[in-house]
Amino acid sequence: MHEEGGDEKRKRMSVGLYVSCPANIKGAIETIFEYGYHFIVTQITHPNYARVLQNGKFPQNIGRTDRVLKSSEWSRLVVGELTASIDVDSEVDHIREHSKHLFLQELGFATHLSVPAILIQLTKPNNIQLAHILNAKLTSGFSYSVWVNLPIIHPSRYSPISETEYDTWDWWNDFRTYCNYDKRLGLVLDIPDTKHTVPSCELDRWIGEPVKAIVIPTSFFLINQHGKPVLSRTHQDIIKKFMSIDVQYIIKPDSEGDLSLYIRYLHFLGKKLYVQDTMSEFVQGCEDFLQNPLQPLTEHLETNIYEVFEKDQVKYDTYQNAINKAVEAFHKESGEVPVVMVVGAGRGPLVQAVLNVSYTLNRKVKVYAVEKNPYAVNTLIDRVKNEWCNKVTLINEDMRTYEPPEKADILVSELLGSFGDNELSPECLDGAQRFLKKTGISIPSSYTSYLAPLQSIKIFNEIRSNRPADKTLQTCYEMPYVVHLVNYYQIAPPQELFRFTHPNWSERINNQRYKKLRFQCTQTSVLTGFAGFFETVLYKEVNLSIHPDTHTPDMVSWFPIVFPLHEPIHVTEGNIIEVSFWRAESQDKVWYEWCLESPVKGCIMNPDGRSYFLKKY
Amino acid sequence: MHEEGGDEKRKRMSVGLYVSCPANIKGAIETIFEYGYHFIVTQITHPNYARVLQNGKFPQNIGRTDRVLKSSEWSRLVVGELTASIDVDSEVDHIREHSKHLFLQELGFATHLSVPAILIQLTKPNNIQLAHILNAKLTSGFSYSVWVNLPIIHPSRYSPISETEYDTWDWWNDFRTYCNYDKRLGLVLDIPDTKHTVPSCELDRWIGEPVKAIVIPTSFFLINQHGKPVLSRTHQDIIKKFMSIDVQYIIKPDSEGDLSLYIRYLHFLGKKLYVQDTMSEFVQGCEDFLQNPLQPLTEHLETNIYEVFEKDQVKYDTYQNAINKAVEAFHKESGEVPVVMVVGAGRGPLVQAVLNVSYTLNRKVKVYAVEKNPYAVNTLIDRVKNEWCNKVTLINEDMRTYEPPEKADILVSELLGSFGDNELSPECLDGAQRFLKKTGISIPSSYTSYLAPLQSIKIFNEIRSNRPADKTLQTCYEMPYVVHLVNYYQIAPPQELFRFTHPNWSERINNQRYKKLRFQCTQTSVLTGFAGFFETVLYKEVNLSIHPDTHTPDMVSWFPIVFPLHEPIHVTEGNIIEVSFWRAESQDKVWYEWCLESPVKGCIMNPDGRSYFLKKY
Repeated sequence: MHEEGGDEKRKRMSVGLYVSCPANIKGAIETIFEYGYHFIVTQITHPNYARVLQNGKFPQNIGRTDRVLKSSEWSRLVVGELTASIDVDSEVDHIREHSKHLFLQELGFATHLSVPAILIQLTKPNNIQLAHILNAKLTSGFSYSVWVNLPIIHPSRYSPISETEYDTWDWWNDFRTYCNYDKRLGLVLDIPDTKHTVPSCELDRWIGEPVKAIVIPTSFFLINQHGKPVLSRTHQDIIKKFMSIDVQYIIKPDSEGDLSLYIRYLHFLGKKLYVQDTMSEFVQGCEDFLQNPLQPLTEHLETNIYEVFEKDQVKYDTYQNAINKAVEAFHKESGEVPVVMVVGAGRGPLVQAVLNVSYTLNRKVKVYAVEKNPYAVNTLIDRVKNEWCNKVTLINEDMRTYEPPEKADILVSELLGSFGDNELSPECLDGAQRFLKKTGISIPSSYTSYLAPLQSIKIFNEIRSNRPADKTLQTCYEMPYVVHLVNYYQIAPPQELFRFTHPNWSERINNQRYKKLRFQCTQTSVLTGFAGFFETVLYKEVNLSIHPDTHTPDMVSWFPIVFPLHEPIHVTEGNIIEVSFWRAESQDKVWYEWCLESPVKGCIMNPDGRSYFLKKY
Repeated sequence: MHEEGGDEKRKRMSVGLYVSCPANIKGAIETIFEYGYHFIVTQITHPNYARVLQNGKFPQNIGRTDRVLKSSEWSRLVVGELTASIDVDSEVDHIREHSKHLFLQELGFATHLSVPAILIQLTKPNNIQLAHILNAKLTSGFSYSVWVNLPIIHPSRYSPISETEYDTWDWWNDFRTYCNYDKRLGLVLDIPDTKHTVPSCELDRWIGEPVKAIVIPTSFFLINQHGKPVLSRTHQDIIKKFMSIDVQYIIKPDSEGDLSLYIRYLHFLGKKLYVQDTMSEFVQGCEDFLQNPLQPLTEHLETNIYEVFEKDQVKYDTYQNAINKAVEAFHKESGEVPVVMVVGAGRGPLVQAVLNVSYTLNRKVKVYAVEKNPYAVNTLIDRVKNEWCNKVTLINEDMRTYEPPEKADILVSELLGSFGDNELSPECLDGAQRFLKKTGISIPSSYTSYLAPLQSIKIFNEIRSNRPADKTLQTCYEMPYVVHLVNYYQIAPPQELFRFTHPNWSERINNQRYKKLRFQCTQTSVLTGFAGFFETVLYKEVNLSIHPDTHTPDMVSWFPIVFPLHEPIHVTEGNIIEVSFWRAESQDKVWYEWCLESPVKGCIMNPDGRSYFLKKY
């Protein structure tokens, strides 16, 4: 049983077996390992022992002794199910009190055994007592995870006679809210049978939750023409969805059959459904991992960063295409040898693209490479000499202050961050255009940022738990993070925020911006922040995009950016999420501020750039 | 190249090759891998490029470009040697300034390449400028380790004409003190040739340092009768010492020879010298790892802790031996069936020992097992029924309040911690002796704690860096830790501190203690705290001990305990280390206080138990 996803596990399905109450747990574990299962879900107490009060005390004999398994078996292989009939939320006082004692005894026993996770069931709304007990344990440093078992769709939703249509997501959401979104709370979801489908927006919302496992009863399996159990297309589609967040599977035997066949089928399904594309290979292991945005203007990039950037062939092919079209256009116009300046040349990938264009078109191009990092220049010196036949003029200067001997026809740069302008591309290019002819072309010619409301308790928790000792929690929530979003739910489609175009020959350039956006919620969810994306026009119809709807295929250079909120905000269907967003600027820095105005008013985040800003110098 | 030691690596020697300046670094790496080496130590700049000032600026071309290796190769395989001739501590102003610029350029390049470690040499005392530059980098979040290269014994010590006999440990100690004991500072030691030996106390002091590697020139190898290079017995002894702290080896070619033979020999030597005993198998992976002492009176132990305890066969055999002698003595005296009470029975290992004695001696014994943890009692119920034929009376109570139906002849307990009394054995047994007959026997009958002055910068740093968010640094230094001491130096032999005997029929039992100890330093060292040990007399001549000089062979249940100081204290040869130690007590808790009085006065640590105490209830 594993708690966190990793490379290996993604391809190999981790599958457990539910065995309510084996006569011999050691034997049961040995048997299911022979079948190929990885863990067991079972009751840790023994229902044969009626645990009733005797003289005001519970008997200590709870039926199984710890010594039937090695402690390493308890702590790695057993998910301990607590007795489902214990009702700590009963409205009858003495039942509630009695249940609480039984429940605490089982929790204590789970601690004693050091099982990695316990499994509890939510069977009705508003489990405030259950939350009260578990939250106290979680707060006092409980070692195990709590797996909350629920159906994806409550049976009342199919029942013609039920008065209330329960949404089990609400039960879960209330419960984990009471428990302050503790990251040791996970979900174990029962999927519905083939007769019932899950609305896709609801499935998407579950994908945004910490789902640890999904339960598949053996009765859900169909028998194929070879007599083997297989899952229906509907169930396969559900599994494919959940594979993206690397869940585990629990087979629940409720029909006859050779138990080894189900796990073998799931392994087959894992291989069949797993899509290994460029993107997934490249980004494996950084799912929902928080990265601090770069400060490339004031901190030199290191070798490994350059190397990662340079590997994105799609991006540089697109750049080369844009340069090609620009050089051709220039030639058609003037017939002269174009002066192309690559500003922020790094170790030279765009210089190479310019030289490729020159070679492909068989046209002369005069190339300058401007780069301020001396260690990247050390590499460029070597490439100019050994690869580029001394055809490139190298300038070790900041593009904002460099005084060139001539002006450029084409200015090529790659200064964009995940939010477009967030690595100060506007400020840099405004500086560099001093040496662009008035008729000159900038590649990129424009870029636009986009924003969408986000639900990701995972990221909310990551920020909370990764706080460095020298930062306040407030600071940590008042700054953006670059994140490969996986375990999240996008509450509404992205909307356009800010746009910048280059060159910008306005008399007074103003790179400050303000905009208010309004998003409509289609279902109840939890707003934890905003996800940011960008699109850029490199040249005419040549674009790059990380906007979810127009994402350049196989391009891996940028992950979305996330602007958090201090606390998760509950939003309901039909609510309008209204947010104000600023790009602000002072003498030496640039920063963003953001503020929620609806459905509730929040405080202005990052006022005056107090927690996060981009240094200009 | 690895930075931290682990299980696997202990048995497999990690060996690097020193190649000052290969013409082709890619080729060099491929070649040494074929030989079997794991990493390379080499200059990252190229000495062919004279880096002199031109118009007040250094040229950017520093000779090697980052692209000759993949960034993953730079970051895993290359220890970057900085140019040894750069003298940032020169007393000539312009040389110092010029050197600083060159040095910073190389440091910047090392950052650019993301090498895992840089290698610098200390060639004279008091490298304050070097420390100033590196400390600034370490403080500002430098990613690599700094390996400081030094000879174990400075050549001046052998030289008849040298005026000063340099102690290189002093150079190192000054340097790392300037750098605030930063844990990214490591040592690379040159061992002396066979003609010169290292005094064993000096070798012990180096073993207490963060030695990352030792350098072995190929000229140190002798040729055996098969024509293969081997090391002398003297050198083997040095390597055996350093193997305990899991160092790496750097072969430095300074003579002719097939380079693959040296690494093959080192692997052979690794297997030959490695001693795999019970102890080392049991404790692997917890070297110098900080554990918080248990609070077994107020927190129930968990299954895995019981399981670990129960595995120590030596301990329980010794207990059984003591019980055997006590039962025999009792029988000789009275001829009756002895009442034996095991107090704090856990899951029953001492109960089993008592039953074994009864069986071996073929004598009846009446056994009570008193245990307060209900989950351990759950196990005992099962054992009484299924293993012990209902022969044991089980009591689920606290031994301090239990009212038994009869009194015991023999009281058996295992309540000792690493410091003897530090898990409140005195308080528990004083309570339990209410039901011991006046003529009765307590096993153990006494225990004594010992204290020794300790040098362990490793532990000083572990405490500093492992501080939980909810504790102050002061709190973390004012509490003891249980540690399997490996990378440490014991400055002087342990001395007796406190003793407790049982039963204790004094009218007024006083478990408070005070003692002042004085230790003499035999060589300059750094005092970072005190190591504690204990010896116990179980019964008459049957003892258990973790005192380094009398340690019970193969017993693994206890590691030493460490009482830290806030800051490392420099002590010199002949200094007297004077420490006062208190065991204090209030209504509901017990704690220790300690205070250094010489060679300098320190503050009283843990006054009134503010940072650490043992809860009685």
